[in-house]
Amino acid sequence: MKRRIGILTSGGDCPGLNAAIRGVARAAYEMFDTEIIGIHDGYRGLIQGDYQVMDRSQFSGILTLGGTILGTSRQPFRNMKVIGNDNVDKVAAMKANYKAMKLDCLVILGGNGTHKTANLLSQEGLNVIGLPKTIDNDLYGTDFTFGFHTAVDIATDVIDRIHTTACSHGRCMVIEIMGNKAGWLTLYSGIAGGADVILIPEIPYEIERVAKVVEARANAGKSFSILAVAEGAMDKEEAKMKKKEREAKRAASPQSISQRIAAQLQDIAGVEARAVIPGHIQRGGSPSAYDRVLSTQFGVHAAELIRDGIFGVSVALVGNTVTHNPLSEIAGVPKLVPTDHQMVQIARNIGISFGAK
Amino acid sequence: MKRRIGILTSGGDCPGLNAAIRGVARAAYEMFDTEIIGIHDGYRGLIQGDYQVMDRSQFSGILTLGGTILGTSRQPFRNMKVIGNDNVDKVAAMKANYKAMKLDCLVILGGNGTHKTANLLSQEGLNVIGLPKTIDNDLYGTDFTFGFHTAVDIATDVIDRIHTTACSHGRCMVIEIMGNKAGWLTLYSGIAGGADVILIPEIPYEIERVAKVVEARANAGKSFSILAVAEGAMDKEEAKMKKKEREAKRAASPQSISQRIAAQLQDIAGVEARAVIPGHIQRGGSPSAYDRVLSTQFGVHAAELIRDGIFGVSVALVGNTVTHNPLSEIAGVPKLVPTDHQMVQIARNIGISFGAK
Amino acid sequence: MKRRIGILTSGGDCPGLNAAIRGVARAAYEMFDTEIIGIHDGYRGLIQGDYQVMDRSQFSGILTLGGTILGTSRQPFRNMKVIGNDNVDKVAAMKANYKAMKLDCLVILGGNGTHKTANLLSQEGLNVIGLPKTIDNDLYGTDFTFGFHTAVDIATDVIDRIHTTACSHGRCMVIEIMGNKAGWLTLYSGIAGGADVILIPEIPYEIERVAKVVEARANAGKSFSILAVAEGAMDKEEAKMKKKEREAKRAASPQSISQRIAAQLQDIAGVEARAVIPGHIQRGGSPSAYDRVLSTQFGVHAAELIRDGIFGVSVALVGNTVTHNPLSEIAGVPKLVPTDHQMVQIARNIGISFGAK
Amino acid sequence: MKRRIGILTSGGDCPGLNAAIRGVARAAYEMFDTEIIGIHDGYRGLIQGDYQVMDRSQFSGILTLGGTILGTSRQPFRNMKVIGNDNVDKVAAMKANYKAMKLDCLVILGGNGTHKTANLLSQEGLNVIGLPKTIDNDLYGTDFTFGFHTAVDIATDVIDRIHTTACSHGRCMVIEIMGNKAGWLTLYSGIAGGADVILIPEIPYEIERVAKVVEARANAGKSFSILAVAEGAMDKEEAKMKKKEREAKRAASPQSISQRIAAQLQDIAGVEARAVIPGHIQRGGSPSAYDRVLSTQFGVHAAELIRDGIFGVSVALVGNTVTHNPLSEIAGVPKLVPTDHQMVQIARNIGISFGAK
Repeated sequence: MKRRIGILTSGGDCPGLNAAIRGVARAAYEMFDTEIIGIHDGYRGLIQGDYQVMDRSQFSGILTLGGTILGTSRQPFRNMKVIGNDNVDKVAAMKANYKAMKLDCLVILGGNGTHKTANLLSQEGLNVIGLPKTIDNDLYGTDFTFGFHTAVDIATDVIDRIHTTACSHGRCMVIEIMGNKAGWLTLYSGIAGGADVILIPEIPYEIERVAKVVEARANAGKSFSILAVAEGAMDKEEAKMKKKEREAKRAASPQSISQRIAAQLQDIAGVEARAVIPGHIQRGGSPSAYDRVLSTQFGVHAAELIRDGIFGVSVALVGNTVTHNPLSEIAGVPKLVPTDHQMVQIARNIGISFGAK
Repeated sequence: MKRRIGILTSGGDCPGLNAAIRGVARAAYEMFDTEIIGIHDGYRGLIQGDYQVMDRSQFSGILTLGGTILGTSRQPFRNMKVIGNDNVDKVAAMKANYKAMKLDCLVILGGNGTHKTANLLSQEGLNVIGLPKTIDNDLYGTDFTFGFHTAVDIATDVIDRIHTTACSHGRCMVIEIMGNKAGWLTLYSGIAGGADVILIPEIPYEIERVAKVVEARANAGKSFSILAVAEGAMDKEEAKMKKKEREAKRAASPQSISQRIAAQLQDIAGVEARAVIPGHIQRGGSPSAYDRVLSTQFGVHAAELIRDGIFGVSVALVGNTVTHNPLSEIAGVPKLVPTDHQMVQIARNIGISFGAK
Repeated sequence: MKRRIGILTSGGDCPGLNAAIRGVARAAYEMFDTEIIGIHDGYRGLIQGDYQVMDRSQFSGILTLGGTILGTSRQPFRNMKVIGNDNVDKVAAMKANYKAMKLDCLVILGGNGTHKTANLLSQEGLNVIGLPKTIDNDLYGTDFTFGFHTAVDIATDVIDRIHTTACSHGRCMVIEIMGNKAGWLTLYSGIAGGADVILIPEIPYEIERVAKVVEARANAGKSFSILAVAEGAMDKEEAKMKKKEREAKRAASPQSISQRIAAQLQDIAGVEARAVIPGHIQRGGSPSAYDRVLSTQFGVHAAELIRDGIFGVSVALVGNTVTHNPLSEIAGVPKLVPTDHQMVQIARNIGISFGAK
Repeated sequence: MKRRIGILTSGGDCPGLNAAIRGVARAAYEMFDTEIIGIHDGYRGLIQGDYQVMDRSQFSGILTLGGTILGTSRQPFRNMKVIGNDNVDKVAAMKANYKAMKLDCLVILGGNGTHKTANLLSQEGLNVIGLPKTIDNDLYGTDFTFGFHTAVDIATDVIDRIHTTACSHGRCMVIEIMGNKAGWLTLYSGIAGGADVILIPEIPYEIERVAKVVEARANAGKSFSILAVAEGAMDKEEAKMKKKEREAKRAASPQSISQRIAAQLQDIAGVEARAVIPGHIQRGGSPSAYDRVLSTQFGVHAAELIRDGIFGVSVALVGNTVTHNPLSEIAGVPKLVPTDHQMVQIARNIGISFGAK
């Protein structure tokens, strides 16, 4: 009996998506009689019935390819957060298309939002397996998501390049790293790039403390400083605000967080400071060796789960073992950096400041 | 007789500065009795007499190092553009320090502004040799400046990474490449990165033409487009303005050029568009193999000129030969992209649009 | 009271050594009153009393630097494997110099051989902390050694480049990856590089099975194949030999393992086959972001152990936690790839052959 | 009237082949009514009539792809060097297939051997345009071939990585760079990688001079040396031999040139020396930005020549202008490094030894 597997990728694109898709497909073809249905542009394709029957050759040569051969989307699923009356139709449409495509199961690659919907579909009776994808590494239940380590490589390379300018010009460089809620990417790339200050959403900062670090370095003869700042970093005042209030304040400002901090440091510490916002390059391009291995492991494990008839789970890395968690336990639960995390302590112990006690 | 060579690096930092410094030093040590004086932070060090006597080991291991071991500055020299009464003192100070350091000559690494001052010092009787450094490639008299090809590599890598996001999300991505006056960096990296549209200062664009390219691609089933846009790109209206007026308009806007174009394309073409501003990463990090070779050639040729007593010149690459031009003929003459340049024609012939006829 | 910490790096060089040294030093300076003694060229420097008192600035800017600023050596320690009468003097010399340098403890960075000696010195009463360094990842007690993931990146990049030649020429390419005893590097880079066959020392292969894979691919229209082969891979006949016998056989052959396999495949499968031996490039250059973080964590944890007076241990990564194991339990115990390791199973499940059942 | 353009790639694969193919195709589609015929595996496909009619989408996304989408071969054409009775049939077959495919012209991408055949076909009356491809840069009439600068980047990266091992272990590392006849790749990457000694076929070396450089460095406290050695480098005795004699001698030795030199240096200078043979990785992978631009320029110029009805030529870069030369003047003429080339002199002036006066 041929098993029909639907695959979709949803949310922001991320290195390793194609490697994971290839892992599912190659392992499925290897292990059992398989037909793969590629659903276009994430949940949009499932809602609208936009898909293609794939053939084996389409999974060849994609291990190293950035992005996703299936396309992705953010919109439909953003409107789906709360399952109200409006959304019933979308869920119904997805269920109907799952049936129309004669799927035996659905492999869904995505982040927190994607997993919420995956869990919903699972609760609605579909056979769903989630794969944890995001450069933010903020999915509960897995030590690492795929895409994260590639993003760390890119952000570190950015910091390396900025280092030479900082040093040659005696400047303070404020580098804005992706991560609205979770500081993992900033924490790792900040340590790897030799940052002097790391600011993450989980540890609200005081600008005066940051300025003191910069001044202390200048007094010690080091005319430059490197700050790795998460997009979502916030100072103590902002941390006290309600989320909506804070977001409104941010949206109203023409300055991003790195630009604001650079301006403040020029004012307070009297240094020349510049913001750098590498932006989307942090999520693009070929996956690193690490992420190719992890994505492949995740994809293969998904196929193993299909073989074994295990659904309603999300694949995970725990320690060095690839395993899986119930969707119902992990879907939508964010994994933030604990303020007493060992990495934070290690960073403090080599003198990196978090702008806070 | 020991020759005393002063070296300074001025203007924005740039890959290859250390390789060029090493080239001068190693060739000088190899060819004649030499003492090298490293002047700190560009013209600031010459004005203020801030320098160090270098020893041979300081030039070891710096071939691959980004930035400049001598430091650089932009400020003093910015105020020196016009040689009025105010500046006489600075020039006098530089001449006095040149004398006080007992220099036989001065090797100056920098871009257009730096070369203007170098020419001035040469006319004041100092023995000056210029080395053409800039990621903008906008110095007259040399086919390429060092730093340019490394910046092309970096900008191309940025476009490559953005490509996967553009393609996966079906988005229009507007990438802002360094270059206020000259479009060389955007032209080369745009072609290397497979951009669909290239906008450079030398060819004023019409946003409607750009929008049509994006729409035509969408109609042909290509849901994404890549735009490589120079910082200094301008539309036809801006091109008619006086420079000051245009700069004032730009300074007043919270949007950079790429952000403005992305917003316009969303409006006109109804596509999802995003701006990416890689910024300073384009000028940092280790020089590419090409730039290490070119910087070394330039540095060695400077030492050969010192050996031969030839001053008042700037080193240049013409075809594949390293040679030199009189400072008086090239200093401060910008090298822009001719609108009928072969590269522009070649770009047009593969269907790249410049947003203009 | 100032603590005097001796540091030495021993065995083959490896990315991350300088990052780990910096981690020890910066954390020690940050946490307590410290003097760091850099011992030259591994155990040679300890035996011969060749060292320098370091100052803080020497640990600046080395995070990204490949190799080791302290130098390393293989020889003295190779003769020290068995502690017979001949070696007593060397151990005595090391103890005497430890005393003469007035060390409070010794941080030793190295692989299996290095750790054996470290354990010996610990048993002789010195305060020793080991840091697990090797691109082979074959140290017992730690999930990963630093240097390993950088080597995986390099080996994967090699496979990527070879892929295009293999594909364009319809050739079988046999890539020889470092690893005499352990196949970790070949396993990871083989999966990351999309190899069709992975041969590792732990799983003896049959050349006929390998040839069949190549033929089956050719029959399926894929004219090329990629083999990732560990230096220490062996066929079933060799696996039956005693180690000395096998090594003698290898030493007598002008062919390396990859060259032998390429020749055999030409004979058996009638394909065009080529060997590629990237060699030392797998252990050189700047550490990856992953290894910079891991090396820093390891170095900082060593300083924490010194602070807490815990010696006779080796630092380790277990899951995602940095911790430590008694030297006596882990020293010299090789960590090979279990033949039923999850990664091996995953590789098999996407159709990668190990040339064995 | 639709023009039918045949394209084939012949000889060793090389970065930029696909970029050049894309350049031809996109410019042809843009400029005139076009049909492209892709001929498989170089001249083999032309001899055997193995080809496909391409569609436009096949040229999309290949700018950055290493290798060649058309495949390549070395064999048939090697037997075609001299046009004797045996070969008449092959040439006749190529002419017949050209006619059978109804080609208006043939664009041939390859090196010296490929161009000889291209010239032959041109003299037989076919409309032929050559594109100069080779990592060796040894084609007469063009300043640079595409593929060369990417190979320089890779070889330089290899030297960089080896540098750290050389330095950490105090070793002499002998790196064997591709180039049997011409030393361009070794010369450029040797300078870019900071080699101490560069040995190229054009300048026969004396091993004693090489040994003296290594010893002099050791005496000056530099315990390591880096040698960049072309595959085809030869000592003075070998240089006196006839080519066949020399090749026979080489073929009879189990040692490659780098292994031989490493062994000799161990003997003569008493240093620890190691050979590194990166091999095929120098010709694989994605083309650099430089080569993407050059390949595109070459491809577009070929299409411009087709538009203008100019055949019997090979495209070339002269200075910074893309132009073309008559095939009859350049085909099969090797471009070696002149012993008095400016780059050689510049290398000597920074103290690099060529092992010769």
